[in-house]
Amino acid sequence: MPPTEREIACFEAGIKFGSLYHQFVGTPVSAESAQSLERAIERAIENQPYCTNVTVQIRTDALETTHGYTELTGRYMEAALTVEYKDTTVEARMALEDDYPLMRITAVNAD
Amino acid sequence: MPPTEREIACFEAGIKFGSLYHQFVGTPVSAESAQSLERAIERAIENQPYCTNVTVQIRTDALETTHGYTELTGRYMEAALTVEYKDTTVEARMALEDDYPLMRITAVNAD
Amino acid sequence: MPPTEREIACFEAGIKFGSLYHQFVGTPVSAESAQSLERAIERAIENQPYCTNVTVQIRTDALETTHGYTELTGRYMEAALTVEYKDTTVEARMALEDDYPLMRITAVNAD
Amino acid sequence: MPPTEREIACFEAGIKFGSLYHQFVGTPVSAESAQSLERAIERAIENQPYCTNVTVQIRTDALETTHGYTELTGRYMEAALTVEYKDTTVEARMALEDDYPLMRITAVNAD
Repeated sequence: MPPTEREIACFEAGIKFGSLYHQFVGTPVSAESAQSLERAIERAIENQPYCTNVTVQIRTDALETTHGYTELTGRYMEAALTVEYKDTTVEARMALEDDYPLMRITAVNAD
Repeated sequence: MPPTEREIACFEAGIKFGSLYHQFVGTPVSAESAQSLERAIERAIENQPYCTNVTVQIRTDALETTHGYTELTGRYMEAALTVEYKDTTVEARMALEDDYPLMRITAVNAD
Repeated sequence: MPPTEREIACFEAGIKFGSLYHQFVGTPVSAESAQSLERAIERAIENQPYCTNVTVQIRTDALETTHGYTELTGRYMEAALTVEYKDTTVEARMALEDDYPLMRITAVNAD
Repeated sequence: MPPTEREIACFEAGIKFGSLYHQFVGTPVSAESAQSLERAIERAIENQPYCTNVTVQIRTDALETTHGYTELTGRYMEAALTVEYKDTTVEARMALEDDYPLMRITAVNAD
């Protein structure tokens, strides 16, 4: 079967999270640079089709700083985003669960 | 509304494509190295949850080789993958359309 | 032979450029998001050891925008950085030459 | 002062290590997929100018596998490479030291 409008919207939300994560994981980050990285990730992913909003929070208090900085991983990042595809809105988020950066859909709403 | 099983399966397929693309875009690639990169991308993404199969083809005939190699972009790559989430199977593929690496679901099937 | 202090400083400058390039190439970018990305790249790489300054300019006038945004490549980016290792300062830059993002050392100075 | 031939060779070696690291960190990896990733990293970086040999070893015994796979970081990878620039050969390697993936030049030899 071909996908429904809602299923396409969910697929698009998944693409955004995979992109967000794998583009930026590994970036050198410190408490000082975290905010500029949060903004850049948000603005970058909002460029992608149907993506109307992205919010990223780097958990600066959790950063391992023995060497002055560390590399961004899912352990240090929470994110939420909205995809609007035709008449469907998808809300999704990423947060650490059981030490794994779990991405999931929180709501799918058709107008 | 919370997502249906099918919608979650589509979300998962999207994550895999976003990951595949943004992890590997930028990799130095030539006709000689293309095959090792195809295999590594396939095996890497198949590690992700619910992803049962990934096929990547780098269009070696299309590679721009003025400098002996180029960087992987969506222009040079086609990919297909399968996600199996509970009783739902999603098939998705990525191919160049109008010079844009378009990712889309080709089938969603419930057992 | 083991490397001299100057050679180590040049090696460190090379690491920064390879990091800068391959971490961020592929990032979705538009004229609107370019500035936040420039700042994030600068702050991120300045975290790395011995790197005292990074300047990045995205050539927003050159961005291909048929699809509203494009992906960052060396074609769209110029960068300069300074590494200070012990008593040696290295200046290096990256700019497009013959359609290739060439990285090179512009000066090596010992105090 | 402009760089010497040896200093340029060291700069080039640094570029290769920064590229190698930041292109591939974050890749999903398991004991099963590690070997294909090692080969792909080697072949990819050997495409870059003056880089005649790259060897990568993923420490599969060290991989954290609670979730069936993990993401590649410097903790899981050792690498060595050779750059030949004009009459100068540089050998460099990356290994974990004090929990930091330290990259360093092991030898610089002029013919």
